[in-house]
Amino acid sequence: MINLILLLSFIYFNSQQNMHQKVLFFGDSITELGVKEKGYIALMNNRLSKTKQSEKYQLIGSGIGGNKVYDLFFRMEEDVLIKQPDVIVIWIGVNDVWHKSMFGTGTDLNKFESMYTDIIQRLQKTGAKVYCCTPACIGEKTDHSNAQDGDLNEFSKVIRKIAAANNAGLIDFRKTFLEYNLKHNTDNKYQDILTYDGVHLNDVGNQLVADMMWDAMIGK
Amino acid sequence: MINLILLLSFIYFNSQQNMHQKVLFFGDSITELGVKEKGYIALMNNRLSKTKQSEKYQLIGSGIGGNKVYDLFFRMEEDVLIKQPDVIVIWIGVNDVWHKSMFGTGTDLNKFESMYTDIIQRLQKTGAKVYCCTPACIGEKTDHSNAQDGDLNEFSKVIRKIAAANNAGLIDFRKTFLEYNLKHNTDNKYQDILTYDGVHLNDVGNQLVADMMWDAMIGK
Amino acid sequence: MINLILLLSFIYFNSQQNMHQKVLFFGDSITELGVKEKGYIALMNNRLSKTKQSEKYQLIGSGIGGNKVYDLFFRMEEDVLIKQPDVIVIWIGVNDVWHKSMFGTGTDLNKFESMYTDIIQRLQKTGAKVYCCTPACIGEKTDHSNAQDGDLNEFSKVIRKIAAANNAGLIDFRKTFLEYNLKHNTDNKYQDILTYDGVHLNDVGNQLVADMMWDAMIGK
Amino acid sequence: MINLILLLSFIYFNSQQNMHQKVLFFGDSITELGVKEKGYIALMNNRLSKTKQSEKYQLIGSGIGGNKVYDLFFRMEEDVLIKQPDVIVIWIGVNDVWHKSMFGTGTDLNKFESMYTDIIQRLQKTGAKVYCCTPACIGEKTDHSNAQDGDLNEFSKVIRKIAAANNAGLIDFRKTFLEYNLKHNTDNKYQDILTYDGVHLNDVGNQLVADMMWDAMIGK
Repeated sequence: MINLILLLSFIYFNSQQNMHQKVLFFGDSITELGVKEKGYIALMNNRLSKTKQSEKYQLIGSGIGGNKVYDLFFRMEEDVLIKQPDVIVIWIGVNDVWHKSMFGTGTDLNKFESMYTDIIQRLQKTGAKVYCCTPACIGEKTDHSNAQDGDLNEFSKVIRKIAAANNAGLIDFRKTFLEYNLKHNTDNKYQDILTYDGVHLNDVGNQLVADMMWDAMIGK
Repeated sequence: MINLILLLSFIYFNSQQNMHQKVLFFGDSITELGVKEKGYIALMNNRLSKTKQSEKYQLIGSGIGGNKVYDLFFRMEEDVLIKQPDVIVIWIGVNDVWHKSMFGTGTDLNKFESMYTDIIQRLQKTGAKVYCCTPACIGEKTDHSNAQDGDLNEFSKVIRKIAAANNAGLIDFRKTFLEYNLKHNTDNKYQDILTYDGVHLNDVGNQLVADMMWDAMIGK
Repeated sequence: MINLILLLSFIYFNSQQNMHQKVLFFGDSITELGVKEKGYIALMNNRLSKTKQSEKYQLIGSGIGGNKVYDLFFRMEEDVLIKQPDVIVIWIGVNDVWHKSMFGTGTDLNKFESMYTDIIQRLQKTGAKVYCCTPACIGEKTDHSNAQDGDLNEFSKVIRKIAAANNAGLIDFRKTFLEYNLKHNTDNKYQDILTYDGVHLNDVGNQLVADMMWDAMIGK
Repeated sequence: MINLILLLSFIYFNSQQNMHQKVLFFGDSITELGVKEKGYIALMNNRLSKTKQSEKYQLIGSGIGGNKVYDLFFRMEEDVLIKQPDVIVIWIGVNDVWHKSMFGTGTDLNKFESMYTDIIQRLQKTGAKVYCCTPACIGEKTDHSNAQDGDLNEFSKVIRKIAAANNAGLIDFRKTFLEYNLKHNTDNKYQDILTYDGVHLNDVGNQLVADMMWDAMIGK
């Protein structure tokens, strides 16, 4: 009898494990908004539901407005590791660049690189799969004349480099957003193509991000 | 007798006038260095000499390190108009962008536009021909990842627009420098292709600038 | 008969002139808000009314949010000289300092000085009386720990110097605001003593400013 | 015989321990320069030698130009803990403030506080005595008109607070430098009283710092 209970427990426990692959989205305000209605995480949940995979994945948002790589570093223990996610999606960088001109407290590129690397490696130590995302944009103009384009490109290059060096996944929003805008933003507008303010996703942007995330992690 | 002297004076005076077409270069440290040995203005003088046109053109440098459009505006009377140049080459913009991150005292884009327009129009009122130059670069990397690329592109667009709107000449260093670097800067280096520090011209850069200036103003 | 009309016209014309001493307030958002209900210019108008001096003074607000000394310089003709004021109160400087850290487009101190001097001198040429005001505060803490305190003090010193050098009046808000806060801001708060956000006047601040303006220009 | 050796070894070992109290100076360029000739650490070594206490203290410099609190945080293990110092003097903050206007990569005040606190607590866990120093100055003017005065005062307040909260020692250079300048810098000069450039110590400054460090740690 006890053996049977143990057996059943074992089966149940394993099925639970299989059911819930925990995917944690770790980032700034863009991630914070992702869990709201029409946000990309909400969209992914809808799609999981429609494709009857809701029991296989648990999507957890952990985005805080204004966060820079430092903030992820310091709240990694409490906000990520403690939850034992199987997959972590890091999406950070916009504020590391933007806060330079807004507050004078942006991030030195070399420190961005070392801290980001540290984060990847600590998360990977738990056996989790880590995906790195490049910052999409601060401004959607396509002629390289958004004020922070140079810096965002440089930070994106660093992210691509350390993702590769650490065998992390890469979701290259910066590249895809520019390609999308080159096609659809023929008036070279600053916003209102994939974002509503140059930075934060509008409905089209949320759909694009949800699709790219899905393809990278689930849909393949 | 007196009539003859008058006549000769008149002829001499007119030939003098024809001989000396005054070309004034109005700008920042790049222009300031242009008159030094191997500088682009010095190179143009050499070429005038070789082509026996020295008597036709007088090249005057008026560049001051650190100058922004404001500075040109305020020293226009004293440093330009008083010298009654026939041609004025305005080359400004690097510090308007650069000083944002260096000192917090860069130039608002809309004020750059209105002040630049003002300068062009006042100079043109004297009958002088005005040429506008786009800022070449702060960093020579070709993948749009120099920190100020976005801003420099935006300021360059404004310069192109107001040059056209005011029927001023345009010498588009930003465009040509990028094209040159796309060909020759295959390692995506920050400097040492056309500049020695990302901003100030090396020998190759001085030659390129001298040639472009020549073609725009003299050689055609 | 005609003589009589002329005489009456003359009397009327002169009384008109005497009635309207035009006082123009030339500045940024603080001045812009001054004409609103409970603003310091509105308070001064009330006091003129109560003391039956409304016909002697006409108070004109010319404040535009975000203005720096550059902006005053460029709109001086259109917004001030054309109105032929008898008295001009210049109150500028907060944004020249603040925009350094907010947008990277603050004002170089030496350019602030030369442009401010220029403004004073052009206005004085019309025979108008000019008053200069020091910027009150960005933050009301009294232990010299508001981020921009150093810069505001430096800019205020320049204003005091050029006001004296040009025989302009001086209304030293920076000095008086600090003294007031030393007495009343015993908790060393950033705001809510004379301002509602560290910069823009609350009711107490508007009253203090109205009183200081009155004493300087009218009440003596 | 073996026992005797053991005993002697024990005595020797203990005297060794007493002899060498390791004092590690952990900071930026100011600390880096402290070990050079005439630097304050060199001056302290001289004084130890004169007072025949050289065997009691070993002074170790660990300063790196441009360091901010982040840098100390990340090199703490390798540069401090591994050396097992008995006393650690933390002197940081100038670049956390200065880099805001120089590079746009200064430090957010709340992050400065949390990281500094973290450093103190980790160092104290080893049993070491920790001293915190306030940043002396960026500019020596005494009328609160050095551009960074406000920020430096704010950061100094935070340092005083967390030093007290963590029972760390406090060496208040900011307070003493201002007091010294109020007495000796009667011309309100930017530099050349205790520093040669507003930030880095001249001979008088090095002597003052050496004396204050001595009094705090050794001389009492």
